[in-house]
This record gives sequence, structure tokens and C-alpha cells, in this order.
Amino acid sequence: MIVSSALIENAVNEFAKLPGIGKKTALRLVLHLLKQETPQVEQFGEVITRMRRQIKFCKQCHNVSDDDVCNICASHTRNQKLVCVVESIRDVIAIENTQQFNGAYHVLGGIISPIDGIGPDQLNIHTLVERVQQHGVEEVIMAVSPTIEGDTTIYYLSKKLKDLPVKVTTIARGIAFGGELEYADEMTLARSLTNRLPLENYLQNK
Amino acid sequence: MIVSSALIENAVNEFAKLPGIGKKTALRLVLHLLKQETPQVEQFGEVITRMRRQIKFCKQCHNVSDDDVCNICASHTRNQKLVCVVESIRDVIAIENTQQFNGAYHVLGGIISPIDGIGPDQLNIHTLVERVQQHGVEEVIMAVSPTIEGDTTIYYLSKKLKDLPVKVTTIARGIAFGGELEYADEMTLARSLTNRLPLENYLQNK
Repeated sequence: MIVSSALIENAVNEFAKLPGIGKKTALRLVLHLLKQETPQVEQFGEVITRMRRQIKFCKQCHNVSDDDVCNICASHTRNQKLVCVVESIRDVIAIENTQQFNGAYHVLGGIISPIDGIGPDQLNIHTLVERVQQHGVEEVIMAVSPTIEGDTTIYYLSKKLKDLPVKVTTIARGIAFGGELEYADEMTLARSLTNRLPLENYLQNK
Repeated sequence: MIVSSALIENAVNEFAKLPGIGKKTALRLVLHLLKQETPQVEQFGEVITRMRRQIKFCKQCHNVSDDDVCNICASHTRNQKLVCVVESIRDVIAIENTQQFNGAYHVLGGIISPIDGIGPDQLNIHTLVERVQQHGVEEVIMAVSPTIEGDTTIYYLSKKLKDLPVKVTTIARGIAFGGELEYADEMTLARSLTNRLPLENYLQNK
């Protein structure tokens, strides 16, 4: 792309480094910022730089945090004895947005995947076991993706936790709301039959 | 969207102000930047802030520029007597990318559109007339979009320029390469018949 200004060209290149943003979109964003007042654009730059500089990871659950301990782990209104194990920060946000979960989290920071060279030692598994031991956690919910890697991780964790006095559960697998039976894969359909619910439970959740 | 960190929430909100970027995409970009090293993110912020602070608009053609006069207007290898009138900076970039045009530009900064409250006085028309008068411009090419507003602008400019010793042309309208006749609108098809070319011209351009 030929732009007659090095300032613009550099800004376009920076935007184009972001995932899913090509040169054309990057140019559109830069030309949009050009139309804004300088203080607004300075704020944009500062907020993002400050975010990266000051962000911390919670010592307890490894979630992103503004302080040493995140506000979920620090909250007295949440059940700290119920810990939901997730792969990434994004999953925490997804579950928080349901507004249905009142426990705490534990972010693994990935999933066991030998093909990508990720073993248990690269993940925050050690701290989970410690946490269960030291904080009297009563239930650990495995909320990882239903893939082979996810199942491997669940299996590994369940072995690590099996001698501790803690209940281990996984989130339900089944047909998604709005999903159609005929398009569901066999595995999901089979599991949804095996784990069928009494009708009262289903109607209660409606 | 519930995020447990104000730093991240602010960054997401800043990204979500950009055109075509919603909260979910903004979050994806922010989480991507979180994975980068701090100096890289600082560079991102700085390059964009610097761009907005230092960018200038060329005194002659109103294109974006790193200096008072842009490198197209300052170039001795380009034909400064041939001026292509465009609506916006984006059009300059589009034409430059064809690598087929060796003249200079004049950016109007918009198009006459009474419905949006944009009249000739809001556009860089005065400076175009001055430029034609003072710099002995030989040809002005109107390269504005083939819309009612575009045609109004062309008509207005042609009246302003009609007493000056300058040739006024417009870019050709016609069937685009790869376009199919049956899907072309009547106006385009009619104009492409009226402005038909000798076959030699066509073959030369191949």
C-alpha cells in the first residue's frame, strides 16, 4: 500500500499487527483516528499502554486483575469454596456474563496439548492443587472445552485431586439451546442421552 | 460485558469506539495485546499518538503529509500541471496504488451534499481555483464518485473553472473489469455506449 505519509504508514502497520485486521481495515481505523481531536487519540494510546503496563495477574486464580488479588477472589459475597477451572481469561468473562455463577475461578492458562508442546508443567495446575489443599475448597468444576485436549486435562486434574477431600464435577455437555438434534454430532447426542435429566430439573431452569 | 479489571474494561471501551469494532472484537484485540511484551504495546500506543500529533495537511493539495507540503506536491518527477480532484485522502491512496497516475492531487475534503449540510464553502474549492490560476495548471481531472452529489460537485467546479485556461476532464465511467453487462445499471451501460472507444485504444491498454 502506497501512502504519502510515513506517520500514517507506521500507524497502519501497527494496527495491521492485530489479529483479524488487514491493511485496508487498518487504514480505515487510522483515517478515523485522524478525524478525531488530538486529546482523544492521546487518550486511546495512553489507556492501552497503561493497561499493558499496570495489569497484574491474580496471585490466587491467575485471572487478570488491577491488584495482587483479583476482585472475584477478594469478594466476601462469593463462594470461595467453589472453584471453576477454566482455560483462559476469556472463559472467565464468558461465565461472568451469564451472571449465574457465584463461586471463584482458577485460570489454567491453556490446556494440555502435547502436539503444541504444552504439558501440565506449563499450566497453573500446581497452584490449583495447593489452593484446594490450603483453602478447604469443597467443589472444583471443570469448565474446559469438550475436545480431546480438554478431556485429557480433565483426566489429569482429576488424578491430581483424587486423594483430596474435594468434589470434582464438569459442566454439562448436551444439545445447546436453539440447536437442532439432527445436526448434533453423535458424541454430544450420546452424552446428552446418558446424562439425561428428570423433567422437573429441566422445567425449574426454564 | 463484565470484566473483572477496570484497566481492561477501559481499553476495550477505547477499541470499541473505532468504526466496525464491537465489544467482542475489542476484547479479542485487548487480550491479544496483553500477550505481547510491554515495549511492543508501548510502541503501538506511541506510534498512533505521534501520528495524530504530528500529521499535517499539505498546504497545496490538502492531502495528509509529514511536512508542510506533501511529497507528491514537492516531487519534481511528477507533472504538477495535471491535477486530479478527489473527495478524500482515501481516494488519493486508491489512485496511487494503481501506479498509473503521474500528476498531482487536490483533496476537496468532501462533496457538495445539501442534505448533509455540506456546501461549496466547506470544501477546498477556493484553493483549487487559486492553484489553477497561479500555478498554470493545464488539466484538472475530476475523479469523484458517480453519484448525484458527485455530479453536483463536478458541475459546480466546472462553472468555477470555466473562464480559466484549463482543460477539465472526468475519469471514464463504464463497465468495470470483471463486471457483467446484464448486471450493470442502465445509466452506466448507457454512458459506456455513449463514450465508446476505438478498438485500438482498448487493445493498447490491455
